[in-house]
Amino acid sequence: MTEFSTPNETAPEPGRTRRGGRTGKRNGASGFSQPAFQQIRSPFPCTPIVSDDELESIHLASLRVLSEIGLEVLHDEARAIMKEHGADVRPDTHRVHFDAELITELIAHCPSEYTLHARNPAHNLHMGGSSMIFSQIGSAPNCSDTDRGRRPGNQADFRNFIKLAQMHNIIHCIGGYPVEPIDVHPSVRHLECLRDIVTLTDKVFHVYSLGKERNQDGIEIARIARGLSREQLQDQPSCMTVINTNSPLKLDVPMMEGIIQMSSMGQAVIITPFTLAGAMAPVTIAGAVVQQNAEALAGLAFSQMVRKGAPAAYGGFTSNVDMRSGAPAFGTPEYMKAQLLGGQLARRYDIPYRSSNACAANTVDAQAAYESVFSLWGCVQSGTNFVKHAAGWLEGGLCCSYEKMMLDIDLLQMVAEFLTPLDLSPDALAVDAIRDVGPGGHFFGSPHTQARYKTAFYAPIISDWRNYESWAQAGAPTAIEHANRLWKERLAIYEEPPMDPAIREELGDFVARRIREGGAPTDF
Amino acid sequence: MTEFSTPNETAPEPGRTRRGGRTGKRNGASGFSQPAFQQIRSPFPCTPIVSDDELESIHLASLRVLSEIGLEVLHDEARAIMKEHGADVRPDTHRVHFDAELITELIAHCPSEYTLHARNPAHNLHMGGSSMIFSQIGSAPNCSDTDRGRRPGNQADFRNFIKLAQMHNIIHCIGGYPVEPIDVHPSVRHLECLRDIVTLTDKVFHVYSLGKERNQDGIEIARIARGLSREQLQDQPSCMTVINTNSPLKLDVPMMEGIIQMSSMGQAVIITPFTLAGAMAPVTIAGAVVQQNAEALAGLAFSQMVRKGAPAAYGGFTSNVDMRSGAPAFGTPEYMKAQLLGGQLARRYDIPYRSSNACAANTVDAQAAYESVFSLWGCVQSGTNFVKHAAGWLEGGLCCSYEKMMLDIDLLQMVAEFLTPLDLSPDALAVDAIRDVGPGGHFFGSPHTQARYKTAFYAPIISDWRNYESWAQAGAPTAIEHANRLWKERLAIYEEPPMDPAIREELGDFVARRIREGGAPTDF
Repeated sequence: MTEFSTPNETAPEPGRTRRGGRTGKRNGASGFSQPAFQQIRSPFPCTPIVSDDELESIHLASLRVLSEIGLEVLHDEARAIMKEHGADVRPDTHRVHFDAELITELIAHCPSEYTLHARNPAHNLHMGGSSMIFSQIGSAPNCSDTDRGRRPGNQADFRNFIKLAQMHNIIHCIGGYPVEPIDVHPSVRHLECLRDIVTLTDKVFHVYSLGKERNQDGIEIARIARGLSREQLQDQPSCMTVINTNSPLKLDVPMMEGIIQMSSMGQAVIITPFTLAGAMAPVTIAGAVVQQNAEALAGLAFSQMVRKGAPAAYGGFTSNVDMRSGAPAFGTPEYMKAQLLGGQLARRYDIPYRSSNACAANTVDAQAAYESVFSLWGCVQSGTNFVKHAAGWLEGGLCCSYEKMMLDIDLLQMVAEFLTPLDLSPDALAVDAIRDVGPGGHFFGSPHTQARYKTAFYAPIISDWRNYESWAQAGAPTAIEHANRLWKERLAIYEEPPMDPAIREELGDFVARRIREGGAPTDF
Repeated sequence: MTEFSTPNETAPEPGRTRRGGRTGKRNGASGFSQPAFQQIRSPFPCTPIVSDDELESIHLASLRVLSEIGLEVLHDEARAIMKEHGADVRPDTHRVHFDAELITELIAHCPSEYTLHARNPAHNLHMGGSSMIFSQIGSAPNCSDTDRGRRPGNQADFRNFIKLAQMHNIIHCIGGYPVEPIDVHPSVRHLECLRDIVTLTDKVFHVYSLGKERNQDGIEIARIARGLSREQLQDQPSCMTVINTNSPLKLDVPMMEGIIQMSSMGQAVIITPFTLAGAMAPVTIAGAVVQQNAEALAGLAFSQMVRKGAPAAYGGFTSNVDMRSGAPAFGTPEYMKAQLLGGQLARRYDIPYRSSNACAANTVDAQAAYESVFSLWGCVQSGTNFVKHAAGWLEGGLCCSYEKMMLDIDLLQMVAEFLTPLDLSPDALAVDAIRDVGPGGHFFGSPHTQARYKTAFYAPIISDWRNYESWAQAGAPTAIEHANRLWKERLAIYEEPPMDPAIREELGDFVARRIREGGAPTDF
């Protein structure tokens, strides 16, 4: 445990304000405030990057890949299920070919929209349509802050990060372990982590597909946390998993097992090929997306073989690499193009779309910010429904940063405010206020301004708007320094969300029993 | 003169590469390379922020402001011109009222598209339609770099900045003095600066509207530089001016004089109300844009009274202020909303649209980057044709930063690459390459990759894509440090563009004579 994970004071948050449109604004008073938890919806039309004909050429090329080249499917039961549903499965090979009609027929069963249920119903999330969900970073092996530097993940940091996710309304759900707690043995890590997640947070969460037992344990923890029967759970998606294909064109045992377990229980699967152009996919963005699309369609179709109507999402994670080093790049122009193209494909199939807020920067400098905002630009304009790694991500995902977490919270809140429809009432059009002030006057003291100024604008938590002289006199703090102060202030006032004692007991018993049993195999 | 303005070496730029789409890419070799100078065009539909009916309500509210409230017009000749064209001008007041029909009829004469002519025809620019022009920062009183800190502008820094504008293809034109050279007397500053601009650069440039003489001198310098007669110049816009109204609702002498001089000579005027919501305009974004629109329409209509068909642009510069300090904020959600709304209005009137790449940050940190990319996001999605302050802007425009200049060059090049249409040829769709590599293979060494990898992706000039360990070993450089190194490397190899000796002589004679005559009055 670090000094930051055991706060001594638990002061309540200052009162929240809410007015005008859907987004609350921070008032002018001192102290931290934030917009209320809410479902973000984009009022904007998505930006197409190709014509309908061009989109069809991508779609058809992907279907050719699935029928002519096929995928390697390493999981015997999965191949049997595929054969049963009409795929071309032969006894002497892992290679499976899929007819265009089979794929088309199956993916039509993917629901366009559904609800992801949290144990706190106020934190339920709508997936699909114009909705946007911001999910915390998942799976970083390292974490960092400017006080203690960069280090491998541990349980104390893991807990700190999920506390930050709980207490910031703009982080809608837990997208995996923000940092891997490597001080917890892999056999029981999922049990320790998921128990922490469902007690320290009351938001929707992610279950890793790393072998059948982990999926089953995760689903059971979701069921217990929500107090449902297994039958009820099947109709109420309450957790999700991300399935990354082994690009190019391989589907391995844990991912097939993950789809079987999650889809059969009606829990959400997000099929996300990790198609880095020039490495695991063609160097051309169009070609990388053809491959992404083939792999995503195969995974989505398989989820519908397991259970028709099982909730799923189309994940896009195509980016380019630094061709000198092979290092992945994010938030690049190529990344944005792939985001838009992926979104257009997902809309063609009418399946919710997942993208990410990613960057390759090693510290929270200008690069981290511009790569992240470029990523968010792509997310919004591509119609992304599920923004994975929305907060905390650095170093191409190898590090979860405390300071980046706070910076991203600010960026996400700004995006949410941008997406809040304009007030166009006659009062907002302000012709009378303009008349009252008149030519050469000023609006600072006008009644129209006085009645609105406290909540008229989004008040950022990181941006330093002082003039140069005041800022320099204050020591010329940069954004990373503001972020560093903020996360410590915030963690110090974390409060655990309430939980029914009976549920807490059942959860404790289940986790204790599974740990006694040895947890899950570690040969994944 | 500083150490950086007199480079000792003038090594030529490494060879440029150009392939695939419209944008050249840097190859993998060492040394600086950049995409060729080219007209940027957005392939994307603009993002509307309001419905057509809602847009009409903004338009009608602006027309009510113009007819019911009117504007103060401080310039006698301008009021006479307005009266002559049917505006409601009375002898005992500066207040002028404009009928809706008068405004509508006049602005219909604004051309939708035109060419801005540079003295180097290869640097001509298309204004309007889907074209985007990136213009360097104008009018900062201070400049800064991390070696020498922040200081008032001087001629050496001024010259350095315009050299950087000349040598970077993504900066399409000179948008005023990047920094005010306060060591040059105001009476002759415009002569010294414009002579420098037309000799050290061969790009389109801006003329300040600070009294009749400065406009006339600027137009004459543009004429001489292009070797045209005055009659020829009238049909070939070769310089531009930005007219900022005195919001709220005032049009002062220099701005009216600027429109009279520039429009009568067929040079471009960009009418840009500076409507900070809560200060010079209503605190509501809709209200601030109603006022922006009223002021812009009045200025545009006046330009068409001066000369029907005179080239003009609709400028939007609405943003919010920090309501605690009154300091202007930029790159905020409110700024982006105003950008989209302004763009939608300009499209309604079919007049080219100007917006800006602005930020309020005091240094080139994460804040500078996110505010700038949010601004650029608004520029692209609003269909901005002319991006003013596209490179170099810090501190809400109070400082031109060497490091921000290089960062913005990278950001603009990334935006340009994002706007380059995807290659969707069968070869780019890469089904055969996917087949050749097959499941579980890798694309690094494939012939499809080998043939393309050098120029497949945009290679950023600032981003550090090394892994954490290599980056830390190299001293953990942040983006501002990379930018600092770059501008020095670049300035060291600046080369002056060629100029016809006869033009150089005529220009020198004109400037020398006007300086002998005492330049222009300084009581503006």
